[in-house]
Amino acid sequence: MPLGSNSYGKSGIRLVKVTRRGGKHDLRDLTVAVRFEGGFEAAHAAGDNSDVLPTDTMKNTVYALAKELPVEEIENFALALSDNFLRENPQVSGSEVSIEERIWDRLGATAFEGSSNERHTARASRSRGGVAVESGVKDLLIAKSAQSGFSGFRRDRYTTLKETSDRILATSLTAVWTHTSAAGPFAGLWEAVRRTLLKTFAAHESASVQHTLYAMGEAALGGHAGLGEIRLTMPNRHHLLVDLSPFGLTNDNEIFVATEEPYGLIEATVTREA
Amino acid sequence: MPLGSNSYGKSGIRLVKVTRRGGKHDLRDLTVAVRFEGGFEAAHAAGDNSDVLPTDTMKNTVYALAKELPVEEIENFALALSDNFLRENPQVSGSEVSIEERIWDRLGATAFEGSSNERHTARASRSRGGVAVESGVKDLLIAKSAQSGFSGFRRDRYTTLKETSDRILATSLTAVWTHTSAAGPFAGLWEAVRRTLLKTFAAHESASVQHTLYAMGEAALGGHAGLGEIRLTMPNRHHLLVDLSPFGLTNDNEIFVATEEPYGLIEATVTREA
Amino acid sequence: MPLGSNSYGKSGIRLVKVTRRGGKHDLRDLTVAVRFEGGFEAAHAAGDNSDVLPTDTMKNTVYALAKELPVEEIENFALALSDNFLRENPQVSGSEVSIEERIWDRLGATAFEGSSNERHTARASRSRGGVAVESGVKDLLIAKSAQSGFSGFRRDRYTTLKETSDRILATSLTAVWTHTSAAGPFAGLWEAVRRTLLKTFAAHESASVQHTLYAMGEAALGGHAGLGEIRLTMPNRHHLLVDLSPFGLTNDNEIFVATEEPYGLIEATVTREA
Amino acid sequence: MPLGSNSYGKSGIRLVKVTRRGGKHDLRDLTVAVRFEGGFEAAHAAGDNSDVLPTDTMKNTVYALAKELPVEEIENFALALSDNFLRENPQVSGSEVSIEERIWDRLGATAFEGSSNERHTARASRSRGGVAVESGVKDLLIAKSAQSGFSGFRRDRYTTLKETSDRILATSLTAVWTHTSAAGPFAGLWEAVRRTLLKTFAAHESASVQHTLYAMGEAALGGHAGLGEIRLTMPNRHHLLVDLSPFGLTNDNEIFVATEEPYGLIEATVTREA
Repeated sequence: MPLGSNSYGKSGIRLVKVTRRGGKHDLRDLTVAVRFEGGFEAAHAAGDNSDVLPTDTMKNTVYALAKELPVEEIENFALALSDNFLRENPQVSGSEVSIEERIWDRLGATAFEGSSNERHTARASRSRGGVAVESGVKDLLIAKSAQSGFSGFRRDRYTTLKETSDRILATSLTAVWTHTSAAGPFAGLWEAVRRTLLKTFAAHESASVQHTLYAMGEAALGGHAGLGEIRLTMPNRHHLLVDLSPFGLTNDNEIFVATEEPYGLIEATVTREA
Repeated sequence: MPLGSNSYGKSGIRLVKVTRRGGKHDLRDLTVAVRFEGGFEAAHAAGDNSDVLPTDTMKNTVYALAKELPVEEIENFALALSDNFLRENPQVSGSEVSIEERIWDRLGATAFEGSSNERHTARASRSRGGVAVESGVKDLLIAKSAQSGFSGFRRDRYTTLKETSDRILATSLTAVWTHTSAAGPFAGLWEAVRRTLLKTFAAHESASVQHTLYAMGEAALGGHAGLGEIRLTMPNRHHLLVDLSPFGLTNDNEIFVATEEPYGLIEATVTREA
Repeated sequence: MPLGSNSYGKSGIRLVKVTRRGGKHDLRDLTVAVRFEGGFEAAHAAGDNSDVLPTDTMKNTVYALAKELPVEEIENFALALSDNFLRENPQVSGSEVSIEERIWDRLGATAFEGSSNERHTARASRSRGGVAVESGVKDLLIAKSAQSGFSGFRRDRYTTLKETSDRILATSLTAVWTHTSAAGPFAGLWEAVRRTLLKTFAAHESASVQHTLYAMGEAALGGHAGLGEIRLTMPNRHHLLVDLSPFGLTNDNEIFVATEEPYGLIEATVTREA
Repeated sequence: MPLGSNSYGKSGIRLVKVTRRGGKHDLRDLTVAVRFEGGFEAAHAAGDNSDVLPTDTMKNTVYALAKELPVEEIENFALALSDNFLRENPQVSGSEVSIEERIWDRLGATAFEGSSNERHTARASRSRGGVAVESGVKDLLIAKSAQSGFSGFRRDRYTTLKETSDRILATSLTAVWTHTSAAGPFAGLWEAVRRTLLKTFAAHESASVQHTLYAMGEAALGGHAGLGEIRLTMPNRHHLLVDLSPFGLTNDNEIFVATEEPYGLIEATVTREA
């Protein structure tokens, strides 16, 4: 039977690189995933591995190149890795390198704190015809306790939700944006886009998650010329007003129960004019 | 700026239905996700919610229809939900309903055990033009301790992996298959496909994960005429041989360390003849 | 300043042993933790490591002894490990070895399925004066949809809960029992105690989680003479009745929402007559 | 059969309180657990619930008191809750209230960022005879890339670990300290103790995890007179040097693989002079 789309690779490659600048150290903490596409019919159908570079080798390559190259902007490291893989492997038609960086804040010249769940992500997707680069934030937990409502929505016979002009809006933001050029420069750009997203989130008069999501995407593209498009995923982590009336108490948007399930899931891409 | 692809919905809708057949109960335990697509530009760009059915209503609809309909084959329940959503919402162009079922084994007439991580999944994707149905298994952990090797692979300067004709092959299988007809019948089919996948995994002379993955897909399509195609995702959960030589001991493929990271990630779709 | 109670050790030692009996294989999958107690003041206060056996050595010892000994009843393997550690380390006053076993069900002579979250646990706690052995089940998810109520409870001004004579009782059972003798035999005993716990859970007319917990503990001690005492931990995973009345529907204990948070947490030890 | 130690309560009570100070909001995000001890034999053995205050009522009490009281220092809120429970429930001999606070950083007057895994913890344990208060940090991920070694340790026939004078020391710190007085004041104290712990970690010349742990505990007690004792739990998250020699490269403590399993587990209490 025909083999359809297929890929293979190595995920969860955990790399920490310490770079010493005199007595001051830099600590980069990456989780790398490598994925190959190509004509691997013989491996699948006949068990012929002659075109299969082991995923263990992909892992070794990541560590070796981490030694040989600077590991600074993860976009550049992903580009270098994907380039190496395509150059060395004529049997491969596409290589994708995805990186998630844990951000360590400095406690001192050689000490660091890294408790945040937020990740800086990057991906280089390279074919024989070219390469595309994306950057992103993942699992950035944000909330606003004012300037957020939800009203005027469509109703049907199963609708019981009350309209509100004052609710907590909380989300675990994941955003991915493309770069119009793979040449960068990438230094400082991620931090700048992240600041734009946060500033817009904080200031927006939100009529819905969709409304704020779009405003954030629009601000990112508007403020940063090198971005091609941006996709935002904003799960709505509902904060429900607790009914305190059985205890003779009022609740003026003060006491909430934070819930995990169910959650709204809002996703959209904002692009430039066609 | 133009809005690109976008969707919204409710995820993590936790539903348990108890159906009483005399003194014997059935327990169905589902996690449902609903997703709408359509022309939601006004909601994003202008904060106009008049076309936005609340995700809270999606949740209510799931519970109401769970009462009104039998909840047996989850494929049928997903179809009924997606049909309801499109019928009631002319502003929506597509509705997707995804269900994961936790499997409870019977301990008695009204008692159950449900510790397994494995899930039975189903999805109905409905547009104005038609509907597609998928079924699947998710997170089915399987291992084989014989008939598995990996040799004859491509080598480069970063390759240190040794060839082996005897290794543990372990994976957390996720598979999704399409149905050529949305009319079913679905009763018993999931169990039958699952048995085929497991039987093939156990019996296969494996030259690689790719090789076994393909054999499992081929057996599923070959043995079940109603399937259109099947996509298998098989992370390779490596079991590394422990070097016992420093202690004067041999290790004849007997003592392994099971690892979580890094892992190989092998994915492919097997289709029918074009 | 004085050092109070202290310990150190290695956790998360992942061990898989394949035992070949002709063409039929046994697969044991353990996660082992080792913990030492003793007079480690010099290590803490002065950085003097001369009494500190590296935790890396603990790990090596687990793998070496897994090769040299049969790995069948995990209680026996924990006993052998703790004995070895105390014998070889005069500077240590106590060694504790804890094991969690993933249970793999057989798919064939050399193939296995292991998706269950449930674990078989065992612990040997050894001092210079003697040894104690415990066994247990962990994360065994069970539910009953009949013979469970909760009424006649204490009320105060914050009590809004309705009485019920028909609710779903669901819990993720963790139970730990002591053995009156470290000599065993252990073969088959864990399975037998587990069966007693499940049978009692399924049959009990439950007035509360506490009531069923106690009945399970009493049955375990009553049915198995070698057990000293048993501690049961039963989080109450609430299943809330969905209010369908806004949609003109009744809900006769049929449609529930399963919740993760908050949860009741019920714990008790049942002992033998003093 | 006799009932041994037992308790019951409610865990996972998710509370968010928004306090408005003009246009500036404070956001407090707590997860509360309540636990009762007492003479609950009748509930266990006879299914008599007359002394059992529902755990649902515990939850309601948390929300009602969060409205009626300021929610600032979580130590004070835990004390107030435990006091209320003992006063209202003569059948209860002890009440324990544990709180974990997610820390939200300010993005603006009414917007916040809360991605960190670190938690501020507090516990009030109250009996009829008195009350004890603890505070702590949980899951604070820290690392140092200099001033850390491990050498001069005990060796046996299973020891293969190499000595090192330069390694990465990384841990997910959990620390719990007692207060000599339940009267506080607590404002600012947690932040001060946390700073002391981090400063000591960053500056210490570490001969082992035990050595640094003890220094941190000693500094906390030495620098903060109101603390009674402190318990530190410091899992050793190993960073292993990658062997780059097969690729003709050296690795001067530069390229590491970060591992999750196995991990060293180091725990100790530091007390004041007896």
